[in-house]
Amino acid sequence: MEKKVLIVYAHQSAGSFSAAAKEAAVEVLKSKDCSVEVSDLYVMKFKATATAEDITGEVKNPEHFRYAEETKLAWDEGRLSADITEEQRKLQEADLVIFQFPMYWFTVPAVLKGWFDRVLTLGFAYTKEKRYSNGIFKKTKALLSFTTGSQETMFSPTGINGDMNVTLWPLQNGILHYCGFQVLAPQIFWAPEDAAPEGRSAMLAAWNTRLQGLLDEKPLFFAPMDCFDCEKSYQLKPESVEKCVKEFGLTAGTHCGKPLPPNNQMKAGV
Amino acid sequence: MEKKVLIVYAHQSAGSFSAAAKEAAVEVLKSKDCSVEVSDLYVMKFKATATAEDITGEVKNPEHFRYAEETKLAWDEGRLSADITEEQRKLQEADLVIFQFPMYWFTVPAVLKGWFDRVLTLGFAYTKEKRYSNGIFKKTKALLSFTTGSQETMFSPTGINGDMNVTLWPLQNGILHYCGFQVLAPQIFWAPEDAAPEGRSAMLAAWNTRLQGLLDEKPLFFAPMDCFDCEKSYQLKPESVEKCVKEFGLTAGTHCGKPLPPNNQMKAGV
Repeated sequence: MEKKVLIVYAHQSAGSFSAAAKEAAVEVLKSKDCSVEVSDLYVMKFKATATAEDITGEVKNPEHFRYAEETKLAWDEGRLSADITEEQRKLQEADLVIFQFPMYWFTVPAVLKGWFDRVLTLGFAYTKEKRYSNGIFKKTKALLSFTTGSQETMFSPTGINGDMNVTLWPLQNGILHYCGFQVLAPQIFWAPEDAAPEGRSAMLAAWNTRLQGLLDEKPLFFAPMDCFDCEKSYQLKPESVEKCVKEFGLTAGTHCGKPLPPNNQMKAGV
Repeated sequence: MEKKVLIVYAHQSAGSFSAAAKEAAVEVLKSKDCSVEVSDLYVMKFKATATAEDITGEVKNPEHFRYAEETKLAWDEGRLSADITEEQRKLQEADLVIFQFPMYWFTVPAVLKGWFDRVLTLGFAYTKEKRYSNGIFKKTKALLSFTTGSQETMFSPTGINGDMNVTLWPLQNGILHYCGFQVLAPQIFWAPEDAAPEGRSAMLAAWNTRLQGLLDEKPLFFAPMDCFDCEKSYQLKPESVEKCVKEFGLTAGTHCGKPLPPNNQMKAGV
C-alpha cells in the first residue's frame, strides 16, 4: 500500500543545504510511490507561540489559563485553530514524519519547537495512559534530519559540546518517543557549511542512499513501558534492572548510574 | 554596588505558579537592593521565529539567507530589529538572568526558544574564540527556574523520562554556558499542579529562602576550555582525561564513556 510521508521543514532559505536535503527526501520518497506532504514552516509563517488564540471561542479558565488543559478541551470539541487542526490531520495520516532543520542552540529552531508545542496537544498526541511505548503514534515512524554548525568531534563523549546522544535524548525521548513514535536513527549532516562542495554532495548522496530503504529501517531502542512501575513512580522495576542493566545503562536517559550505552540515540540495534 | 537582574518570563497566565515564582523573585531581589527588569514574553508578544525581518534594511545574501551570518553583520552595523536590540541591552546590563518558565516537551516553550535564537546572536553573544569558559557573558550569572508536569522520580536515572541532568545539558551547556554564563543550579518546581496548596506554598517558601542568597551562589561545574584541544578537534586533552576522569565522567555531556557525575547539572560543588 502507498505510504504517506510528512516532512516538517524549518529553514528560511530555498538555497540552503537543509532545502536540498528536504528536496532529496521528497524526490526519493515519491519515486518509491510514497505520497509526500511538506509543511514549510517559514513559508507558512507558522505561529510558534502557544497562546489562548489557538482556541476558537471561549477558553474555560481565562484567569488561570493552562495551555495543555485548554487545548485538550478545545480538541475534544473541535475548537482548535485551523492551522493546528491541519497539521494534526497531516500527522495522523502519515506513516513516516521527517523533521528537517538546522540545529539551533543544541535543539530545534523556535518555529519547529512551536510546531511541537502547538500540534502535539494533550488528547490528540498523548494522554497519561497513552505515552511512550503505549503512545498514540506507535505505528508511525519519525526521524530528525538536521545540520550542525559544529564538527562531529565536538559532539563526542570527550568533546566540548558533549555526547550527541545526550543532546538528542530530550528531543527523541521527550517529544517523539513520548508520543509513541518509532524513532529512526537521526540523519546528521555535520557542519555542511564548513565542507567543500564535494563534501556536501557526498553527504546528500549518502542521504539519498539511505532514503531508499528508510521505510524498512528498525527504530532506536527505548525501554518499554512494562519495564517501569507505571502505577506510581515510573521507576524501573527491580527485575528490569536486574535483567537489563549490566555493563551499561538501559538508555542515554535511564542510565541507572552506569555508562551510557554507546550510540543509544544514534543507531538502531545497539 | 547595586546589582542588576533580568527575569525572562514565559507563562501566559498571571494566575499561574510560574507567575508567583517570578513575583517572588522580583520582590526578594528588590528588597536586596537589586534593580530588576522583567521581559514578559507573552505580554510583549515577543516574536519567536528567526527571520530576515530581524534585520533592518537589506540582507547581504537573500538567495542564501543564513541567520547567524546575517545577524552578525546587522549587529556590527546596528541594524538588528528594535525588539532584539532592547533585549540585548537588558542582557548586557544584567549581573544575573533568571529564566522562569513551565517546561514544555523537556525544554523551554517556543517563545523562550525564540528569545534564545534571536537575542543570542553571533558577535553579540558568542564568537568562535569567545565561547564556554572564554565566553562573552562569563561575568554574568544565569539560572533556569521552571515547573515540570512530571514528578521528580520520573526524571531520575532510573525513571522513564530519564535523568534530569541529561535533559538539562543541552540548555545549560549548549546555550547558557556556551555564551559563557556562570550557570547557577536550576530551581525546579516539581509538578506544582499536582501538589496541594500547602505543597505549592512550601515550594514558593523554599524559593524565597534561596533567593536571599542567590547572588552569592557558586555556579555549576563545566570543564574549562583549557582542558580541550581548542586548535582543532575540541576534544579533551589526554592529560585532562588522565587528571580528571576517574570513576565518573567530567560532566553530563563530556562523560568519556564513564557514569555521569551525579547531579552535575543540578548542584554546584559536586
